[in-house]
Amino acid sequence: MGGLWGELLAEFLGTFVLIAFGDGVVAMAVAALPGSGRAQTNTTIFLASGDWLLITWGWALAVAMAVYVAGGVSGAHINPAVTLAFAVRRRFPWNKVGPYMIAQVAGAFVGAALVLLNYFPAIDAYNKAVGTGRADPKGNATYSIFATFPAPFYNGNNIGPLIDQIIGTMFLVMLVVAIIDLRNTAVQANLGPLMIGLAVAAIGMSFGANAGYAINPARDLGPRLLAWAAGWGQVAMPGTVEGSFSWYFWVPIVGPLIGGVIGVLVYDWFIGDVLHARMRLAEGPEPGRTAE
Amino acid sequence: MGGLWGELLAEFLGTFVLIAFGDGVVAMAVAALPGSGRAQTNTTIFLASGDWLLITWGWALAVAMAVYVAGGVSGAHINPAVTLAFAVRRRFPWNKVGPYMIAQVAGAFVGAALVLLNYFPAIDAYNKAVGTGRADPKGNATYSIFATFPAPFYNGNNIGPLIDQIIGTMFLVMLVVAIIDLRNTAVQANLGPLMIGLAVAAIGMSFGANAGYAINPARDLGPRLLAWAAGWGQVAMPGTVEGSFSWYFWVPIVGPLIGGVIGVLVYDWFIGDVLHARMRLAEGPEPGRTAE
Amino acid sequence: MGGLWGELLAEFLGTFVLIAFGDGVVAMAVAALPGSGRAQTNTTIFLASGDWLLITWGWALAVAMAVYVAGGVSGAHINPAVTLAFAVRRRFPWNKVGPYMIAQVAGAFVGAALVLLNYFPAIDAYNKAVGTGRADPKGNATYSIFATFPAPFYNGNNIGPLIDQIIGTMFLVMLVVAIIDLRNTAVQANLGPLMIGLAVAAIGMSFGANAGYAINPARDLGPRLLAWAAGWGQVAMPGTVEGSFSWYFWVPIVGPLIGGVIGVLVYDWFIGDVLHARMRLAEGPEPGRTAE
Amino acid sequence: MGGLWGELLAEFLGTFVLIAFGDGVVAMAVAALPGSGRAQTNTTIFLASGDWLLITWGWALAVAMAVYVAGGVSGAHINPAVTLAFAVRRRFPWNKVGPYMIAQVAGAFVGAALVLLNYFPAIDAYNKAVGTGRADPKGNATYSIFATFPAPFYNGNNIGPLIDQIIGTMFLVMLVVAIIDLRNTAVQANLGPLMIGLAVAAIGMSFGANAGYAINPARDLGPRLLAWAAGWGQVAMPGTVEGSFSWYFWVPIVGPLIGGVIGVLVYDWFIGDVLHARMRLAEGPEPGRTAE
Repeated sequence: MGGLWGELLAEFLGTFVLIAFGDGVVAMAVAALPGSGRAQTNTTIFLASGDWLLITWGWALAVAMAVYVAGGVSGAHINPAVTLAFAVRRRFPWNKVGPYMIAQVAGAFVGAALVLLNYFPAIDAYNKAVGTGRADPKGNATYSIFATFPAPFYNGNNIGPLIDQIIGTMFLVMLVVAIIDLRNTAVQANLGPLMIGLAVAAIGMSFGANAGYAINPARDLGPRLLAWAAGWGQVAMPGTVEGSFSWYFWVPIVGPLIGGVIGVLVYDWFIGDVLHARMRLAEGPEPGRTAE
Repeated sequence: MGGLWGELLAEFLGTFVLIAFGDGVVAMAVAALPGSGRAQTNTTIFLASGDWLLITWGWALAVAMAVYVAGGVSGAHINPAVTLAFAVRRRFPWNKVGPYMIAQVAGAFVGAALVLLNYFPAIDAYNKAVGTGRADPKGNATYSIFATFPAPFYNGNNIGPLIDQIIGTMFLVMLVVAIIDLRNTAVQANLGPLMIGLAVAAIGMSFGANAGYAINPARDLGPRLLAWAAGWGQVAMPGTVEGSFSWYFWVPIVGPLIGGVIGVLVYDWFIGDVLHARMRLAEGPEPGRTAE
Repeated sequence: MGGLWGELLAEFLGTFVLIAFGDGVVAMAVAALPGSGRAQTNTTIFLASGDWLLITWGWALAVAMAVYVAGGVSGAHINPAVTLAFAVRRRFPWNKVGPYMIAQVAGAFVGAALVLLNYFPAIDAYNKAVGTGRADPKGNATYSIFATFPAPFYNGNNIGPLIDQIIGTMFLVMLVVAIIDLRNTAVQANLGPLMIGLAVAAIGMSFGANAGYAINPARDLGPRLLAWAAGWGQVAMPGTVEGSFSWYFWVPIVGPLIGGVIGVLVYDWFIGDVLHARMRLAEGPEPGRTAE
Repeated sequence: MGGLWGELLAEFLGTFVLIAFGDGVVAMAVAALPGSGRAQTNTTIFLASGDWLLITWGWALAVAMAVYVAGGVSGAHINPAVTLAFAVRRRFPWNKVGPYMIAQVAGAFVGAALVLLNYFPAIDAYNKAVGTGRADPKGNATYSIFATFPAPFYNGNNIGPLIDQIIGTMFLVMLVVAIIDLRNTAVQANLGPLMIGLAVAAIGMSFGANAGYAINPARDLGPRLLAWAAGWGQVAMPGTVEGSFSWYFWVPIVGPLIGGVIGVLVYDWFIGDVLHARMRLAEGPEPGRTAE
């Protein structure tokens, strides 16, 4: 059980933790906090300005915790874009790519199901407060708990969000390979998982609002399938042209897969190849490439 | 004094620190900050949206600091759910479980008493500003400084909050055992206490609003007893059916005890058993199980 | 120059950094951010709710950075309450106590002067916007940039703030001696300064609003003298009975000095003596007491 | 390629990452978050109060991530003021100073171009919402995404912002040399990049509003040139007398270059020389000066 099956269990549980905490913090910001009387009682405001920090810190800690859970077994990719990029440039075995991706999407689906289970009363109360009179009372902001959507200023054009997802995931993979590169200033004392979480915080704060920073095909597809199965998707998001399972779904899959490969290539062109050349000068044959 | 008595002193002081800081930050958000003129002068708003971050960071640092104080002596469980889970799956001696739990509840009670002592003027001023005319002027939001309560959207049903407490504590114990597992990516440089604090931040941000994330029987019972002794509990919380010492009290006791055991079992099924099998393959008999 | 004089230079510069950043963040929240058009343009609101996090993170980083600057030379007490507590229970030489305290107050005074120099235009603009028509246009909220003051709910009684300062500083010193105690889980990798900053964040979030968490005689006295020399203090703070150099000044001096000694004593009674007894059992004579 | 060219590639990519994330977070706060419907829908408010934390955490993580990317190759100056200060007092070769600075400004220019590419729809929507009827619809708050500007309370006087930039950069370099000084409490476990990011957070929180804390000539000049090339600069910022390419541009160049040198000198006078004298006493000839 120490072989591929063990790694798939770890990828499943890691992505489950990622989505339980990540979708959980959106459920908190959209439905549970306003409905609980603990903060922000005005349900007509979608999100107040301070809440973006809540969402970005929440997703950052979700990533860090997921990597602490799964890191020692599988390396905690928890993201098909990372798995693909590591196959292209870090010698991750190609025959594991498919199984890893399936485990990741499955973990994301189950994580989203746990969020739905726990937040059903809050979502229901939110829908009663703002959604009555619509064709489908679930067809409102609560679907953003599960699936990402593009900002209204794109006017339904998918090229802009695609570029945004390529850029965000380019930075994600560039930062991940930098943080674990033992030839560079790789984080020690097993604090790499925390630093990768902070990299995701940085992406959320600086590149998060255009398209919801999926930067991970499993993070979007798993919960989107769950939301679709649970009845979201018939009605569009207010202010956008996208419902839960619209044709937009391919953008947070294709963009991250492209962006991740670009990220590792840019890192190697600018940094990795220099470090590689230095090591060859200093030591002869390079013994190992990265901290993985 | 290096034996059980020393460990109980450490559990007492650790839980005292946890509750002094944890209940303290709620006292700040509810009563002292609005009343001090330092922030948010409008006492008719219970909590503004940015305050959930104040509360989650405050509790996270409360946990981290409590573990730094007590960690070297007793391991700093500071939570009966952790103690029970460690007895079930980490060989913590069963005959210490009862004494640890008593020390934890006692420390929580005294920590809450310190918060009451220090915030009595602020609570009194808050009650005068919003609570006049009620049967018991203490019977309002200020009891939430001490005891947790379920969100109104549960409509008084205790099954939802019970599930919420099971889920939250499942994640707490799963993350604790991951963060200290030397076979996994255990945090080094004695930064485990900080990372456990960040795990509690993650739970508060992603699973905090449904039932106030007690995720610790001592954290709720100790301060609830203090609030009951100090006169809260005669009048219900506005918007809920729960007073300070209502029959709800069993939920943040039973839920965490169940959830903590589930957390360590899930971790071992998905991760721990794989790491165990790998170590047996690599080294023969496993020399020690966790970083504790 | 490696002797006492070098240590006093370090205490001076460390406390200078502490106050430049600490008083700086209050100047930001009160005057510069609202006046700059970068955030919160409504000058009639003293502080909005999110700002307490700005102030607590700002002071936390101020402490961490000050300790990184001075730690390697003098141990970076940067606080007379820490110096006194270390003399009482950690064998810090009594003949250095006076010189350390003088260097700390002097560094705080000069740090406050730098803040006044840099924020004079912002303070002036704030005073013009809200303070016209008063006897002394400087006699308003801007003095809180420099000196601490008790919350209005104390109604001018100094015993409440004194208790608050004793409690806050008790926790400060308890946490500092825990974080650096090599027999306990002392933070390694030279991250102790960061963790001490986080301890101050915890105190600010959980015990900050009653009396402004001076928890350091130099932090209050140095800037208070600067503000008094610069003309504040003729007019009371709106909502309080205290001006810049009122008779309140002794509270943030006496409270922290008492609280710090209590903090180290409580730590030793509950934790330190147990660790001491264990070490004597394990190793014979204890080689050294703390990580200092 | 392990020589100067490799170092320039690293400085270019590091400064590119710095500005992509740093200008990105301002684009988020000004245009993308309000326009996305994710937070703060009221476009008539420039920035709400909680947003300064978003901006300061965003820039802090931008710095940390940039240093993790470039640190192992070039030391990650990513700032001409750091490069100059290290040449003056840390034996950085003078013949590399010019090339480093050019690579930094070029990286900053390209990073700003990426931000413009990704946020063009959001900026356009913002301009349509608030800027119609002006001579140049780009001549509004969106230029603050790229270039820094002085607060209105300076009334167009450049001496105040110059002093502010000297002070901010003095602290930046003082803290950087402290954090990496192996004779002091240099941060270990390769967490120096994170701590330098936190130093920038401290400067942003405590010294950020007067002039936008460029504290880095490349951070301001590169994006300012990009904004000028893209058409900003014909119209003044509301409430200020400065447009994108006004004569103010020299202030965030000259101030940081002066301040950085002062920072390393002050550190050495108060701390470095004491540590140097101690080492000479203890060990004879000092083997190496800093952790670089």
